[in-house]
Amino acid sequence: MTRPFDELTKALGQQVLVRLKGDRIVRGTLASFDVHLNIILENAEELTNNEEQSVKEKYPKIMVRGDNIIFIAL
Amino acid sequence: MTRPFDELTKALGQQVLVRLKGDRIVRGTLASFDVHLNIILENAEELTNNEEQSVKEKYPKIMVRGDNIIFIAL
Amino acid sequence: MTRPFDELTKALGQQVLVRLKGDRIVRGTLASFDVHLNIILENAEELTNNEEQSVKEKYPKIMVRGDNIIFIAL
Amino acid sequence: MTRPFDELTKALGQQVLVRLKGDRIVRGTLASFDVHLNIILENAEELTNNEEQSVKEKYPKIMVRGDNIIFIAL
Amino acid sequence: MTRPFDELTKALGQQVLVRLKGDRIVRGTLASFDVHLNIILENAEELTNNEEQSVKEKYPKIMVRGDNIIFIAL
Amino acid sequence: MTRPFDELTKALGQQVLVRLKGDRIVRGTLASFDVHLNIILENAEELTNNEEQSVKEKYPKIMVRGDNIIFIAL
Amino acid sequence: MTRPFDELTKALGQQVLVRLKGDRIVRGTLASFDVHLNIILENAEELTNNEEQSVKEKYPKIMVRGDNIIFIAL
Repeated sequence: MTRPFDELTKALGQQVLVRLKGDRIVRGTLASFDVHLNIILENAEELTNNEEQSVKEKYPKIMVRGDNIIFIAL
Repeated sequence: MTRPFDELTKALGQQVLVRLKGDRIVRGTLASFDVHLNIILENAEELTNNEEQSVKEKYPKIMVRGDNIIFIAL
Repeated sequence: MTRPFDELTKALGQQVLVRLKGDRIVRGTLASFDVHLNIILENAEELTNNEEQSVKEKYPKIMVRGDNIIFIAL
Repeated sequence: MTRPFDELTKALGQQVLVRLKGDRIVRGTLASFDVHLNIILENAEELTNNEEQSVKEKYPKIMVRGDNIIFIAL
Repeated sequence: MTRPFDELTKALGQQVLVRLKGDRIVRGTLASFDVHLNIILENAEELTNNEEQSVKEKYPKIMVRGDNIIFIAL
Repeated sequence: MTRPFDELTKALGQQVLVRLKGDRIVRGTLASFDVHLNIILENAEELTNNEEQSVKEKYPKIMVRGDNIIFIAL
Repeated sequence: MTRPFDELTKALGQQVLVRLKGDRIVRGTLASFDVHLNIILENAEELTNNEEQSVKEKYPKIMVRGDNIIFIAL
């Protein structure tokens, strides 16, 4: 059996959508991650938490602390 | 005695429903998991949190961080 | 002195009621557990959180993540 | 110096009142405990969270997960 | 440099005021503590959370679980 | 590179302002700290959480449990 | 693959924006960090949590406890 982190490795360099606790959504290119699920997203966008999910803010690079993550859409 | 994670192993490749903290429900095919209960769901659907549980959003593949999980219906 | 987990071992195969954080109640046959208090309940029922505690939903088998548990009535 | 857990050992077999997070109060005979402060209460009663503290529900035996406990009145 | 726990050792046998998460205040004689900051208070009083801080409830001895503590006034 | 705790060592004996979860602010002389960020403040003052930050309460010495701290202004 | 903390090392001496739980935003020069993501910010500013993000408070140096961090914009 592969493990969940193997899927993250496959997703490196690809765009992912990350749903965070506190009704936040960020999207960006997955540049790296570690065992705590801390991740680096490049060309990151914070999206509004509604049906349109329009771009609220842009960041060239963010580090998201793993414990805020609900799920990552790969 | 078998252990709870043995039941997850048996459920690999099957559809499971996952109730998350914060009134979220996701459903999908259990593709993998690890000791932290991080899981990969394929053909994942986020459901509305009401009696109908209709599909709100679809994702080809998501990684759910284990600490958000309340229970997994196997 | 016996330890709390010894009581869980004795309760294997018996019906237990589990009160969860977030005002949830589930009931079912205790099939297995581990050191994190992750548990498998068979013929599980989610109950309404009022005096009647009527059945809200039924699941053949659920794995409850231990950190959601307030108490288990044995 | 004695340690807090020594006081729990002395209280074995005696009635204790346990205040839980989320405004819950349970009372019962302390039958066992472990290092995580998981405890078994026998002849347990859940009390209403008001001045009267009347009995709301009775359970022959409950296992309380330690991380829910605010304090135990010995 | 002394360490914070050294101050607790000095306060053994003295009255301390403990502010807890969830707007609770307890006061009592510090009888013992451990590395998790679990503490035993003797002749404990729960105080109202207002300017008067009048006594709401009395307990001969309580064990407070360390993770509820915001600060201890020594 | 120096590490964050090196800055705490430099601040020993100086007045610091500590912002806590739950909208609390305390100020005092940093007397000691440990690896969990438990700290001792001497001549501590709890401040109101508004623009004036006036003194609400005074304590000769308090031990703040590290996990309540958002940031320490050095 | 580089790891998320490598990006923090590259950002030392540069201005970063840190979004904290509880709707707080701080900005400052990243002076140091440790494995818990505790960070030191110099010339730190707390910003209002609205579109303008105007400066609410200034601090010469703050230590932010890592577990409050949602993300760091590098």
